[in-house]
Amino acid sequence: MMSSNTTKSSTLRPLGIRKGQVELSHGSGGRAMAQLIEELFCTAFANEYLAQGNDGAVLPVPQGGRMVVTTDAHVVSPLFFPGGDIGSLSVHGTINDLSVMGARPLWLAASFILEEGLPLADLQRIVDSMADAARAAGVSIVTGDTKVVERGKGDGVFITTTGVGVVADDLELGGDRAKPGDAILLSGTIGDHGMAVMSQRENLAFDAPIESDTAALHGLVADMLASGADIHVMRDPTRGGLATTLNEIAKQSNVGMILEEASIPLRPAVAAACEFLGFDPLYIANEGKLVAICAESDAARLLAAMRAHPLGRESALIGSVQADPHRFVQLKTRFGGCRIADWLSGEQLPRIC
Amino acid sequence: MMSSNTTKSSTLRPLGIRKGQVELSHGSGGRAMAQLIEELFCTAFANEYLAQGNDGAVLPVPQGGRMVVTTDAHVVSPLFFPGGDIGSLSVHGTINDLSVMGARPLWLAASFILEEGLPLADLQRIVDSMADAARAAGVSIVTGDTKVVERGKGDGVFITTTGVGVVADDLELGGDRAKPGDAILLSGTIGDHGMAVMSQRENLAFDAPIESDTAALHGLVADMLASGADIHVMRDPTRGGLATTLNEIAKQSNVGMILEEASIPLRPAVAAACEFLGFDPLYIANEGKLVAICAESDAARLLAAMRAHPLGRESALIGSVQADPHRFVQLKTRFGGCRIADWLSGEQLPRIC
Repeated sequence: MMSSNTTKSSTLRPLGIRKGQVELSHGSGGRAMAQLIEELFCTAFANEYLAQGNDGAVLPVPQGGRMVVTTDAHVVSPLFFPGGDIGSLSVHGTINDLSVMGARPLWLAASFILEEGLPLADLQRIVDSMADAARAAGVSIVTGDTKVVERGKGDGVFITTTGVGVVADDLELGGDRAKPGDAILLSGTIGDHGMAVMSQRENLAFDAPIESDTAALHGLVADMLASGADIHVMRDPTRGGLATTLNEIAKQSNVGMILEEASIPLRPAVAAACEFLGFDPLYIANEGKLVAICAESDAARLLAAMRAHPLGRESALIGSVQADPHRFVQLKTRFGGCRIADWLSGEQLPRIC
Repeated sequence: MMSSNTTKSSTLRPLGIRKGQVELSHGSGGRAMAQLIEELFCTAFANEYLAQGNDGAVLPVPQGGRMVVTTDAHVVSPLFFPGGDIGSLSVHGTINDLSVMGARPLWLAASFILEEGLPLADLQRIVDSMADAARAAGVSIVTGDTKVVERGKGDGVFITTTGVGVVADDLELGGDRAKPGDAILLSGTIGDHGMAVMSQRENLAFDAPIESDTAALHGLVADMLASGADIHVMRDPTRGGLATTLNEIAKQSNVGMILEEASIPLRPAVAAACEFLGFDPLYIANEGKLVAICAESDAARLLAAMRAHPLGRESALIGSVQADPHRFVQLKTRFGGCRIADWLSGEQLPRIC
């Protein structure tokens, strides 16, 4: 089987990005894979570390604090949606995980699982989108890997992005640091990402198109930290939405929370889409928002810093942390009632990120 | 849709690992995912960093050199094969990528893409295998991620493992450092992993069962470095096999190579299986072997160090680096002839790792 391929005279066709497709040979470790990596990935991501051409990247040790490492698989369907695609999402998601831990993002590693038959033009578009997102955030994609699975054993492309960042030694943030009396701040509207993907998936057209909020939050976080506010917790409410994220924190910190429903920013189009499809926006994924929990006395200062950043213009104080052995997250509704916003349980919106 | 799930009274069934399956809810970010992560992943991988419970791990900055980061997606099919499984493979593969760069492995991050319907018992077995492999190598799996895709959109489980290690400041290794006259050493037999997977996939039974060579090479590498030999290049010949790996190095270093076919270790059972199935063992993946290229004067010393290690007992000097503007990797055959061992080109053995 190999013999026909082992003469030096064999030459590869050009990659043919415009009309070509991913083939199994692109994952086999041989010449076709080398070509794909060189022509497509290395060209888009070009940097000195990737150019080392070894099985990994040799990097300077992060200076100025402790190191943070985070990893995320991205399996969003469809690959392209209003406001973004799996490429930008995979960069933003990992940058945001670093950012909400207080870390400055430094480097990314990217692994691709491609399905045989994926148009190379789609892959190019996704890789360009990743490169743009990384460049905009000032981080480099320093190493990577590509595998190909047979048609019907994957779904276009899955991307795992791993991020390395550095967090100052004196900055202590964590889901277990919320204290009764703390203020709960949210950096903007909820549900945009999930409903953008959902409307694309269901082929729904709304009068006002819903766009994903996918964005890198490192700049917003830097401004928040620079404000000097005593921040205890930051987290990005992705899968499971705001309600699930707050329940996680309540559990870790052994506290309860009370939210004011009317204070939670929500676009009318997203509210309408949620109502139409039967979803609760509290459980819908966001990809460019964060929750911050800080000392009550610093809430105004922190809110001002958030609103001064382009990605935090619609920030709001949405509630407070309570002493509560039941660790309930409660919602004061617009109608004066109170309901418990429990963890997401069940299968809401698979493959949203 | 959510309302039925948002009462605090809702309780989860036990995970039911023995008879249960992966469901879409295990990837949705809610309570079922939290349960899967806690009961299955965190229990198996338990360490202080994972216990931080945030979106990533806060780690001490690596001491004693530069940092190395590497990432690898693992999509091997079948998930279980003689001598290993996707779990041990995903740990060994990443440790080996760090090791052949001269780095001491420190931490791993693991991202899982699960297919709906995967038996939880299989996932448990795979996760336990990862935990065992990591423990044996003295590295911790410090952070992770889990996504679930619908039945028929994945294939059981894909695992991306990212590794962080540290390499001494004065150690310079790289695929571009081979020099004419250098000796080429190989740490043992070739083709074992690929043919073990292949025989399992094709349901072939040989008289002598072929086992994968999957193993973590950090200990062997430590002994090789301690020998004081002037090593220029190390690399693990995985996908594409020995021939492809040597072609990569030849290209990067702008040299040629001449190998003695008779000196390349090969198990008779692997040779027979290759002949039966029409494969050339030079192109078959290995998961517990490395190639080392060193100054000719240090070859004997390095070979002795390799043979003294349990994973290098069958190490051999297999050839030498040549000045060659064509960058040919040539093979002197057992019959006195000479043939070119080109890059793998075409689709040989997809999903072998």
